[in-house]
Amino acid sequence: MRAAVLHGVGKIVLEERPQPVPGPREVLVRVASVGTCGSDVHYYEHGRIGDFVVDSPLVLGHEPSGTVVAAGPGASRHRLGQRVSLEPGVPDFTCPQCRAGRYNLCPRMRFFGTPPIDGAFREYVVLREEFAHPVPDSLSDDAAALIEPLSVGLWACRKARVGPGARVLVTGAGPVGLLSMQAARAFGATDVLVTDVNPARLRLARELGAATLDVRENRLADAAYEPDVLLECSGHPAATGQAIREMGRAGRVVLVGMGADEIPLPLNHVQRRELEVTGTFRYANTWPQAIALAASGRVDLDPLVTGHYGLAQVEDALTAGARDPELVKAVVRPQE
Amino acid sequence: MRAAVLHGVGKIVLEERPQPVPGPREVLVRVASVGTCGSDVHYYEHGRIGDFVVDSPLVLGHEPSGTVVAAGPGASRHRLGQRVSLEPGVPDFTCPQCRAGRYNLCPRMRFFGTPPIDGAFREYVVLREEFAHPVPDSLSDDAAALIEPLSVGLWACRKARVGPGARVLVTGAGPVGLLSMQAARAFGATDVLVTDVNPARLRLARELGAATLDVRENRLADAAYEPDVLLECSGHPAATGQAIREMGRAGRVVLVGMGADEIPLPLNHVQRRELEVTGTFRYANTWPQAIALAASGRVDLDPLVTGHYGLAQVEDALTAGARDPELVKAVVRPQE
Amino acid sequence: MRAAVLHGVGKIVLEERPQPVPGPREVLVRVASVGTCGSDVHYYEHGRIGDFVVDSPLVLGHEPSGTVVAAGPGASRHRLGQRVSLEPGVPDFTCPQCRAGRYNLCPRMRFFGTPPIDGAFREYVVLREEFAHPVPDSLSDDAAALIEPLSVGLWACRKARVGPGARVLVTGAGPVGLLSMQAARAFGATDVLVTDVNPARLRLARELGAATLDVRENRLADAAYEPDVLLECSGHPAATGQAIREMGRAGRVVLVGMGADEIPLPLNHVQRRELEVTGTFRYANTWPQAIALAASGRVDLDPLVTGHYGLAQVEDALTAGARDPELVKAVVRPQE
Amino acid sequence: MRAAVLHGVGKIVLEERPQPVPGPREVLVRVASVGTCGSDVHYYEHGRIGDFVVDSPLVLGHEPSGTVVAAGPGASRHRLGQRVSLEPGVPDFTCPQCRAGRYNLCPRMRFFGTPPIDGAFREYVVLREEFAHPVPDSLSDDAAALIEPLSVGLWACRKARVGPGARVLVTGAGPVGLLSMQAARAFGATDVLVTDVNPARLRLARELGAATLDVRENRLADAAYEPDVLLECSGHPAATGQAIREMGRAGRVVLVGMGADEIPLPLNHVQRRELEVTGTFRYANTWPQAIALAASGRVDLDPLVTGHYGLAQVEDALTAGARDPELVKAVVRPQE
Repeated sequence: MRAAVLHGVGKIVLEERPQPVPGPREVLVRVASVGTCGSDVHYYEHGRIGDFVVDSPLVLGHEPSGTVVAAGPGASRHRLGQRVSLEPGVPDFTCPQCRAGRYNLCPRMRFFGTPPIDGAFREYVVLREEFAHPVPDSLSDDAAALIEPLSVGLWACRKARVGPGARVLVTGAGPVGLLSMQAARAFGATDVLVTDVNPARLRLARELGAATLDVRENRLADAAYEPDVLLECSGHPAATGQAIREMGRAGRVVLVGMGADEIPLPLNHVQRRELEVTGTFRYANTWPQAIALAASGRVDLDPLVTGHYGLAQVEDALTAGARDPELVKAVVRPQE
Repeated sequence: MRAAVLHGVGKIVLEERPQPVPGPREVLVRVASVGTCGSDVHYYEHGRIGDFVVDSPLVLGHEPSGTVVAAGPGASRHRLGQRVSLEPGVPDFTCPQCRAGRYNLCPRMRFFGTPPIDGAFREYVVLREEFAHPVPDSLSDDAAALIEPLSVGLWACRKARVGPGARVLVTGAGPVGLLSMQAARAFGATDVLVTDVNPARLRLARELGAATLDVRENRLADAAYEPDVLLECSGHPAATGQAIREMGRAGRVVLVGMGADEIPLPLNHVQRRELEVTGTFRYANTWPQAIALAASGRVDLDPLVTGHYGLAQVEDALTAGARDPELVKAVVRPQE
Repeated sequence: MRAAVLHGVGKIVLEERPQPVPGPREVLVRVASVGTCGSDVHYYEHGRIGDFVVDSPLVLGHEPSGTVVAAGPGASRHRLGQRVSLEPGVPDFTCPQCRAGRYNLCPRMRFFGTPPIDGAFREYVVLREEFAHPVPDSLSDDAAALIEPLSVGLWACRKARVGPGARVLVTGAGPVGLLSMQAARAFGATDVLVTDVNPARLRLARELGAATLDVRENRLADAAYEPDVLLECSGHPAATGQAIREMGRAGRVVLVGMGADEIPLPLNHVQRRELEVTGTFRYANTWPQAIALAASGRVDLDPLVTGHYGLAQVEDALTAGARDPELVKAVVRPQE
Repeated sequence: MRAAVLHGVGKIVLEERPQPVPGPREVLVRVASVGTCGSDVHYYEHGRIGDFVVDSPLVLGHEPSGTVVAAGPGASRHRLGQRVSLEPGVPDFTCPQCRAGRYNLCPRMRFFGTPPIDGAFREYVVLREEFAHPVPDSLSDDAAALIEPLSVGLWACRKARVGPGARVLVTGAGPVGLLSMQAARAFGATDVLVTDVNPARLRLARELGAATLDVRENRLADAAYEPDVLLECSGHPAATGQAIREMGRAGRVVLVGMGADEIPLPLNHVQRRELEVTGTFRYANTWPQAIALAASGRVDLDPLVTGHYGLAQVEDALTAGARDPELVKAVVRPQE
């Protein structure tokens, strides 16, 4: 099979590799669509993210959908032919974090496209059976791939305890911001405001149901919005600090966006208003919920896809964002 | 002003009464619409509900909307002219239950239409300012009245921790069942099943977005539904016990429907599946959320209204359900 | 090795069996102490508990402590020689319940002494490494065995959200009642009342720090106790219904005691006071907490042990309760 | 009556004032003991705390105990003679925060010793009846006064969800640190570590049951402690950042100590470990719990008192800490 392999900063090579063989309780999946993510771009441009260093050839890509084509020992035969969305990280299941239901915090997590685990920019992958979640035919291959970033948004909303009638501020209208915003609406939020500096993304946010604020033109503080919930998806430390200062009493702040080592926390506001601040690391137990929301039309995933790329064009896919400010989500189709 | 006064079982008399004067921090409200409720019917037919006995003339009605026409000492002047939905129970604010945020459990609650507190089947009422909640013009007077039973449904959904993707069974398609069902959908539930024996009500449930099951024709057990949440709105002990036996693991059961002194609890199921069972008593802190959901169109209140009655026709309104199986919610208009 | 094997109702035979061999990630444990439990007695006397039927020879016993004497493939070598308390049920780790942290509800749980899984009334057992929890030397072998029923009590207290200052009623002063009571005190409860009809057990409850009420002599209703929490450990339907009627507003009821198919639930009380009622099924993630509490002296396990029995005396251990009303917990020592 | 009145930075004058008269539902309390707090010292030295500015004469002191000597209209007569601990802030009861049970966040809170509300460094105070909590005779006047700072510690533990077996790090061994530590132990924490640089305070922490670390001599990072909970009571931004970096997965950080406008939040740690960070502002619904814990001996308040002062010596009491590093809590006795 073919695989797009990262061989160092800025160098991805299309290679032939042996097709993987599903182990015990694993299934073999022919990959249909793989979303590209900021972390893929970061590994491609910098060769590392924090402590995770790419020091040997690595296949990126952790937002895959596809079709089950073989089952390993102990995996169910009747899964053959199922269209699936892949949850790309498999924990050890038995550590204290896993047993407590927080498997995303498992220290022995094996996660697609994170060194040294190969990801999905290839024709076939194997995965533990339970992490290949069936999707209905009403979901496109792209939508099935985008269940992964939607899970990021759902997880943020759960951490924030978004509920009906909540006033939710989403800072940053990239893919995660747009999906967090849609997730907030699916949790019943009736008043969602998205901020960014990119008019194309803000326009898409409006089309998907949010109010928007272009923070180059208007100050958030002037909006007097007092949100119950802040879903911080921009990764900008200063924007984060400003947004926290606008929070209403007993508000919840979820830091989803990455980038800074430290952010300044306005202690006085956090105390006086008893704000809760937390960060998210991936997600746990989100796929069934995410698939149900996408299948019922409460969340709309396909409009985020702004371009398709074959397996030979992974570098194009990863650099498209730098060239095109209107790009939201580039999708790789490994069979093309 | 005119008031419809209950003078004993089955006897409501239209009387002239002095218009009430708003006390400190109270507002005077000209009543527009008042929903009728099963408890109004019960007081009318039996003169009591449990320990609450009607032993002197009483005005029923606790689902009112209207317009603020005067403000008492300390109440805000700029409320004059506001259209409002009335939260019909005012607690003492300082008991331990109130201070803990559970003001619905306040032992000194004064609740409209519950002896000895007069309700809203009259032209004017006074109420603590904070319990007269402003509504947008997009809400009809009837919808503003039905914020009260919607609050019952929202409270049930909060107790049940309904969330996106939840599988919710609603037993009973009366007004509370229909509003609990809509509330569950507003909380993100994608798979809601309503059971009843009344085809007209089941049809309305379908029109409002639920799947339905006529339990005269099909057994719930055959549906293999395994709900995460049961919102019991029928008040039938046997139906309740059966529904509890169908619950999925870690499911939540909220007993909203009244009527029986005791119900049989299938202990083995509650333990083996660690079901949580609770009951609701009115609601707390629901009005802003309910109004936001109704105003945003996530919940549709007007279709529940099946008839209007003037103040002289309160007896007709309270007995309409017994005559017409298609009746859902009768609304009294005290100005007519 | 020797094993005490149930061969039918009322018939336990001491047999020679091959010593088990630890599989992947398993350890071999030489068993030191095994508490006897009401469910062991029930299997011995009736051959079944609900749907679990003993239809082939079975070793009972699910409260074991011991020492690690061998490690299977993949299990840590440095565990050899460790004294351990055994968590006797191993789930499948990957089902939705397990992934959500509720592994006690795993439908594929393999639990010691529950058909068809052999328990610990034998000289050696094997167990998944992570479920053999190390204990400090300050804990006796008996105490390490009683971590299991203590876990039942901790789990009940977690479900009940027992916290500092809580008023806790424990109905039933058997081993689970006595340990639930101690757990409640370790969670900070300052006002714990235990009811029973057995003076010896009530005396022990007092020695362990609780107030007591002999319900043959005094009515609970007369105590005007209004508990925040009820930990029902008696299994008596009538007593349960009475206790629920005494609960304070927003109280939590946890049904730990088994025995009845159905119990009568006083609906009116559950609704008017918004009581939460739930049942427990075993426990999850309790061992580290239980061991810490026992090791710190906050919970005292050894006083519950009222008799020791060798492997040849398992029948005596299981029938001791019927002969001696002062018996609390009989412990089997398989090496004797 | 006599009152110690702050007339500007560093200037407290003993004055005669008319004895206050209890209003509706208020009681008159003869003050017995009043703890001094860092915020009293701060107002005395700087004339302000943040937005709260002392611009007219003000009586400080918000940790009072005393005896009810008169009852206003509507207050209960049978309270006369009761020894009480005073909860020093009375909210408006009807704002959304109050109705939700978060009355500490009420924007119209009237709090003792916070401009413009007079505090308790005087012979008599009046207070809403429900906020004068009866104490048993086993509590000393000083202990009844220290229920206030204990409430700060309990509130921190609730926010942190401290439970049995929790590993709790308390940074700072001042009065709030020492009481937070004791509160954590009362919530069942078995492994509590207190850090400070003051040997006298660390010694007291050890006497009260904690392990300690003198951070002038040892680095926290070397302790490899990985706490579940951090109760930050030092107010030092750098120490806070360091402590956050030591937290275990899914840990909770509660920022109790004040002083800095901003603290640096290590975003990467907060995200990777999904830490929850919050701040506390006073407390809500803590008095009954605090009194129960003190009365049962689970928390020991008297050892914190290191000096007594008469009403003429309030300046001495407020400056004692600067002179004596061994001082923990100075108590003013207004009747002396």
